[in-house]
Amino acid sequence: MSKQKPSLPKGTRDFGPAEMGKRHFILETIKKVYQKYGYAPIETPSMENLSVLQGKYGDEGDQLLFKILNSGDFLSKTDQEDISSSRNLLPKISEKGLRYDLTVPFARFVVMHQHELNFPFKRYQIQPVWRADRPQKGRYREFYQCDADAIGTDSLLCEAEIVLMIHEVFEKLQAKQPNSLDYAIKINNRKVLSGIVEVIGASGKETDFAVAIDKLDKIGQEKVKEELIDRGFPTESLQKIDPLFSLSGDNRQQLNHLKTFLSTSEIGLKGVAELEEVLTILEGFGAEVPQLEIDVTLARGLSYYTGAIFEVKPKNVEMGSISGGGRYDGLTDNFGLPNVSGVGISFGVDRIYDVLEELNLFPESNQETTQVLIVAFDEETWKYSLKALNALRVQGIKSELYPEPVKLKKQMKYGNDKNIPYVIVIGSEEMKSGKLTFKNMQEGSQSNVELPEIIKQLTNSSVN
Amino acid sequence: MSKQKPSLPKGTRDFGPAEMGKRHFILETIKKVYQKYGYAPIETPSMENLSVLQGKYGDEGDQLLFKILNSGDFLSKTDQEDISSSRNLLPKISEKGLRYDLTVPFARFVVMHQHELNFPFKRYQIQPVWRADRPQKGRYREFYQCDADAIGTDSLLCEAEIVLMIHEVFEKLQAKQPNSLDYAIKINNRKVLSGIVEVIGASGKETDFAVAIDKLDKIGQEKVKEELIDRGFPTESLQKIDPLFSLSGDNRQQLNHLKTFLSTSEIGLKGVAELEEVLTILEGFGAEVPQLEIDVTLARGLSYYTGAIFEVKPKNVEMGSISGGGRYDGLTDNFGLPNVSGVGISFGVDRIYDVLEELNLFPESNQETTQVLIVAFDEETWKYSLKALNALRVQGIKSELYPEPVKLKKQMKYGNDKNIPYVIVIGSEEMKSGKLTFKNMQEGSQSNVELPEIIKQLTNSSVN
Repeated sequence: MSKQKPSLPKGTRDFGPAEMGKRHFILETIKKVYQKYGYAPIETPSMENLSVLQGKYGDEGDQLLFKILNSGDFLSKTDQEDISSSRNLLPKISEKGLRYDLTVPFARFVVMHQHELNFPFKRYQIQPVWRADRPQKGRYREFYQCDADAIGTDSLLCEAEIVLMIHEVFEKLQAKQPNSLDYAIKINNRKVLSGIVEVIGASGKETDFAVAIDKLDKIGQEKVKEELIDRGFPTESLQKIDPLFSLSGDNRQQLNHLKTFLSTSEIGLKGVAELEEVLTILEGFGAEVPQLEIDVTLARGLSYYTGAIFEVKPKNVEMGSISGGGRYDGLTDNFGLPNVSGVGISFGVDRIYDVLEELNLFPESNQETTQVLIVAFDEETWKYSLKALNALRVQGIKSELYPEPVKLKKQMKYGNDKNIPYVIVIGSEEMKSGKLTFKNMQEGSQSNVELPEIIKQLTNSSVN
Repeated sequence: MSKQKPSLPKGTRDFGPAEMGKRHFILETIKKVYQKYGYAPIETPSMENLSVLQGKYGDEGDQLLFKILNSGDFLSKTDQEDISSSRNLLPKISEKGLRYDLTVPFARFVVMHQHELNFPFKRYQIQPVWRADRPQKGRYREFYQCDADAIGTDSLLCEAEIVLMIHEVFEKLQAKQPNSLDYAIKINNRKVLSGIVEVIGASGKETDFAVAIDKLDKIGQEKVKEELIDRGFPTESLQKIDPLFSLSGDNRQQLNHLKTFLSTSEIGLKGVAELEEVLTILEGFGAEVPQLEIDVTLARGLSYYTGAIFEVKPKNVEMGSISGGGRYDGLTDNFGLPNVSGVGISFGVDRIYDVLEELNLFPESNQETTQVLIVAFDEETWKYSLKALNALRVQGIKSELYPEPVKLKKQMKYGNDKNIPYVIVIGSEEMKSGKLTFKNMQEGSQSNVELPEIIKQLTNSSVN
């Protein structure tokens, strides 16, 4: 075949070692927190039957599914009418698609494994998803989702623990001081939104209200009101909502104001009671989460939420929400298993990456990288180095010997390019005396020490 | 939409928490060993342009590629001739495919990033691949590959280190005694095979020889000879190879016999010299690898190997090779970058899983699972439990409180089904005295101790 200049499909990315180190830092942090709270990992296949995926994400979502062509002579079972249009042909030549999110595959998983699962079932799932979206800055056709859901229980402990998990993840991600990420963990409840709609006399228009109020951050209060009028809300109803834009006081005080506002709405008061209970459970933990903010204007677009909703918003970086979730009913309704309530959270890995990069919050050292490089002068010292290399590795120290005794400069460049923090130089002097030249590349210092002492220093400084 | 009974595409699998724990045990073990030897992680997209994938795996491989349908009105740019056959239509409606292995995407990666990379470049890559193969026992349409390759150096240090990595991986995978996996790390060199073919007077038939001798394990010596005759090897040439089936002595002695056998073949002797050098480097390390076996009948089917070849074969379980690799030239020739030599190894995760399962070698405890479950009698003790839960988690102990104070039996069943090794029971007595009931579910023992003592015990027993 002819030589070709290779390229990547639009909207997809390669990750080299440096990016991988940073991505793992984020993913491992989230994974450890999920595990600490009792969430267990699952994985589902990249492909699902189109019957599982289609009709779950709206018409636009169906368009964005990547479809897989049937194998072999895919046209063999088609007739003249099938090939008359893409719409007719599609179901005849494609039965599978790539997953679009982790929620629908999870619902399918729960239904298929319902008799093996242990309810309440708390699972996390960290896998890529694919969307045939128009690629643009920060939007890719393949990206990781990072979800945790607890299903089969109504307990508000789950909501409280989601707040704690979010808090713990972002505290761990910015362990490196003095930079820091200022962020809000916003919480609301869909029942509060329903109550507001009821109180202002617009019952039945919950979704319109949610869609409009969701834009508050972007378009401001006046434009939201205009949109509500366009959506058929009477002008007088909108005056009633004004107090909601300026609820004063701490979370408890805001909830008290809200109770007065919603005093005639049963569902609204239920929503407030749920929010209060979440605060009570958090107090029970004795854990401080100063970032937690009740926000009655938080709506989240998705229609399937029925209780608590969450969103994390950076305050000192220009960036949309970096994490979000909420409680839903009927996760598995589509697959014939009704009444499965759950609550979930999802971290936006790509956005978190960009935020940490902008604030320079990634750790200096990549924990996955070689810790020490051995550099040898010639054939003889190179062979001598093998034993030192072995001794380092036996102690679990990530180490390399440059594969050939080429010019020192070339070997040092290799270590430098790879960001290896320590170098051991072995020449004939070192071989004779047993005292090796040990360089700390970050500090630019060096000493002559025997191998056991080097191992001791590396083991102490090790981040393993 | 109508309710539907969901299903999985043929040849794909869900992994629940128990399987995930075992799979992570394997993958993390391999990953840590790769890192210890200086291999750095990369990831490439699941989709590649078909121009990158096609023509690299032979005609059969091209058939087995999963192709992705172009988005939108995919037929819009086709004409009557295009839709006359699948073969004509395919290139018009599909431009992307799912990766078939990690080697071709790696070659593409190297070429596209050649100016940023640091040679010799040692990368590992652990990602799923997809093949539209007929599913059968142990063969899936989506499975993980787990590769490490060192490119841009001819140094036989890489070969020696691959032997050490294989050895370390399998020793770590069977840390649990007394069961053990008996296995051979077989090594040969393609140049030795070329030498043999030359010596028996069949130059030019290297590939035929490799394909036939590769079946020795399965069909035996006589059938291999028959196949060689079918492939046009003269009968007298086959008598000459007899000594090769019974080389005696240890690895060094076998290589000495081989040197005599190959004394008239320059390339054959080069192959022997390379094998000797690998042994010499391993001796230089001072590391013992008793499983290493020179095997001149090891051929490996793939045609692109040019130097060392490796294969790991279990001896006390019925199973094909569980790991393999070798040295190749011209990895990136297809993409216009010639003369890139490298050597790589790949672990067969699914087969290793089956082997460890059969020998009961997986660790008893799943390191990713909740370590302690708190069980409360009623509303009041449940609220009291939150502080204990927080204290456990602050110490990094994976812990859960059952989300509601339901019947004790139900809570205990949850812990049991989830294999949680410790349970703390909190009733009104415990609340008053501060001495909690602490159960070790594996030993069936229990004690009444205060929380700090429980934390101490859990931290000591912790495998974190």
